[in-house]
Amino acid sequence: MIKNIFTQILLLLVFGVTIAQQNIDFKNGKIISPEISNNNSVTFRLESANSKQVTLTGDWEENGGKSEMKKDSLGTWTTTINHLPSDIYSYNFMVDGIKILDPTNPFQFRDVGTLFSIFIINNGKGDYYSVNDVPHGSLIKTWYHSDYYKADKRLTIYTPPGYADSDKNYPVLYLLHGSGGDENAWSELGRLTQIMDNLIAEKKAVPMIVVMPNGNPSKQGAPGETKENFNYLPSSSKNFPRYKDGSFESSFNEIILFTDLHFKTIKNKSNRAIAGLSMGGFQAMIIAANQPKSFNYIGLFSPGLNYESINMQIDTYNNLDQKLKYQSNLGIKLYWIGVGKEDFLYKPIFDYKEKLDKLKIPHNYYENSRGHLWSNWRIYLLEFAPKLFK
Amino acid sequence: MIKNIFTQILLLLVFGVTIAQQNIDFKNGKIISPEISNNNSVTFRLESANSKQVTLTGDWEENGGKSEMKKDSLGTWTTTINHLPSDIYSYNFMVDGIKILDPTNPFQFRDVGTLFSIFIINNGKGDYYSVNDVPHGSLIKTWYHSDYYKADKRLTIYTPPGYADSDKNYPVLYLLHGSGGDENAWSELGRLTQIMDNLIAEKKAVPMIVVMPNGNPSKQGAPGETKENFNYLPSSSKNFPRYKDGSFESSFNEIILFTDLHFKTIKNKSNRAIAGLSMGGFQAMIIAANQPKSFNYIGLFSPGLNYESINMQIDTYNNLDQKLKYQSNLGIKLYWIGVGKEDFLYKPIFDYKEKLDKLKIPHNYYENSRGHLWSNWRIYLLEFAPKLFK
Repeated sequence: MIKNIFTQILLLLVFGVTIAQQNIDFKNGKIISPEISNNNSVTFRLESANSKQVTLTGDWEENGGKSEMKKDSLGTWTTTINHLPSDIYSYNFMVDGIKILDPTNPFQFRDVGTLFSIFIINNGKGDYYSVNDVPHGSLIKTWYHSDYYKADKRLTIYTPPGYADSDKNYPVLYLLHGSGGDENAWSELGRLTQIMDNLIAEKKAVPMIVVMPNGNPSKQGAPGETKENFNYLPSSSKNFPRYKDGSFESSFNEIILFTDLHFKTIKNKSNRAIAGLSMGGFQAMIIAANQPKSFNYIGLFSPGLNYESINMQIDTYNNLDQKLKYQSNLGIKLYWIGVGKEDFLYKPIFDYKEKLDKLKIPHNYYENSRGHLWSNWRIYLLEFAPKLFK
Repeated sequence: MIKNIFTQILLLLVFGVTIAQQNIDFKNGKIISPEISNNNSVTFRLESANSKQVTLTGDWEENGGKSEMKKDSLGTWTTTINHLPSDIYSYNFMVDGIKILDPTNPFQFRDVGTLFSIFIINNGKGDYYSVNDVPHGSLIKTWYHSDYYKADKRLTIYTPPGYADSDKNYPVLYLLHGSGGDENAWSELGRLTQIMDNLIAEKKAVPMIVVMPNGNPSKQGAPGETKENFNYLPSSSKNFPRYKDGSFESSFNEIILFTDLHFKTIKNKSNRAIAGLSMGGFQAMIIAANQPKSFNYIGLFSPGLNYESINMQIDTYNNLDQKLKYQSNLGIKLYWIGVGKEDFLYKPIFDYKEKLDKLKIPHNYYENSRGHLWSNWRIYLLEFAPKLFK
């Protein structure tokens, strides 16, 4: 990225070594941010002498994740958040009205349309979200052809450690994203690779394949990964055509067939699970109900059961209670529901749990704190994955 | 990321639909940036009423890629860059001394330690860097075990369209990154997947596997992808232990063996190429010279041939001229060198070309404008890949 030969020659003279990309090297300044101390306090710093107000916003609970930063005489803004529970966290600085990443932190992820700087607090569940010295699985970004949509569609597939060298076949978890997400959401925001590697290393989960398709009917893949390129801006799925039109759920068998054809899978109900978060939880619920002979394990993570936004009369979605009852009668090993007490979907999800009670459909209901957040969805995966295929 | 139940309920009341992640949705403001017009002019905008100075810096040639932006009465800073040649470009805003991404552009990549916003200008070579409506290959992030380093090491592998359904075997290009890079560099900054998909679709390149290992001896993988997690900050490789100690080149056969074991490869010299940029160009040159029976195609993209920074007396690097002569005598189909006239390594690379002339080693020498830049390395891949395995 060096702009001209004069700079290059200067750098060459000064350093005398291969420093081709000097101006893209890390750390222009001397400050460290975020700085994580042993007692799980985190200090954030931003050098910005001219700014009038800098606010830190993060996805932790303390103060609703909001702190005003204070400027010292050298122009460095600072604040410390104390005693964060172990987790992976995301944050931004709001600098006089502009939301920015932490310029000294190169690690980030995109949640729908916003980029966030990230860090991990260890010594707890954050350890499951970290890369550890354990055998690693592989992550594959590939495409399947959908006859239904008459298009190639993108999907992400995790294969467990040892997969390539094994002549075994593996069970499969189909794992769906939420509105505004895509086939990259679980592996990026959800720390899927790290969670699975770590659960498998501890023998808490059995080695399994995890298939993460794009669940947006009108999209072939994630923003930037389709022929729309950078003209496709991230957005809630409800802004897309065909939102909850039943097509994804109706055509889901194409994804199973693709997986069974190209991966070493065990091709039966006992070795298939389906789960999803929010919109993907609704989709998982419908797909499993419509294909009662396909999945023995169902996971609904904060599922999007707010039926008022859905036409429940279309073929794919109708007669739900009868379908659920039939599905249960055929036998399910696990029907797992997770929701946070502060989730804005708490009521419809609790109502759904009560409906299952009434229908006498056995299920596991897991309620924890907080709301409709990746922080919870990662916990639900940590809870759900160890219960599969045992 | 919604912080509390009150906000959630409010949003639910106002919108009545699943808008769980409303505050991470795209576009808080109404401005568009970057806005690309038909004549390849690009307008950049930033809403920042309180800022005193906003500078745009990008990797285009005009004005050395630097433009002062102007603020209008509403507090929106603007500048337009006219008639950009077709390419993929990266840029930042410098806002009163803080380097930030464009807040309205969710697309970015990391080059060593800096994040850049990106956009594509089409109707030229930028088309090769775009996702088009063509068959797509797959990208695999996986690990191999190195007995040499006694560690698992990460690598990225591209398999061409049709690979999974074919019973054919494929030729392999081993493609190495530069100092400060990693196993993700070619697929992210280098647009490898898009370039290969597009060249193969046009039948300009034959379908091939591309293997992109991590070439840093002391690192297992990219920043954030190893057990160091976010404590491993991106840096020029020269800051790492074992920089150019010969170990990567000496142990490279482990990567070939891994590839030949796990992928459908044609396992002979005629169907193997090796290429690299900068540090990786030096590595490719050495590996090919030390294994003269392994590679029929060699590509050196701005290779790091500044020997003053390298101990050329160690076993792996010594007797270079004899090795090159022997390699040439055994037969090479293509020995390709690419360099920009403004590259700070222009002189040592030109000297190397003259050395090959003197040794009567046939080679293709490709010289273009500009310097030590991804803009050039993508061009070299566009030039090199079509010449392989024909």
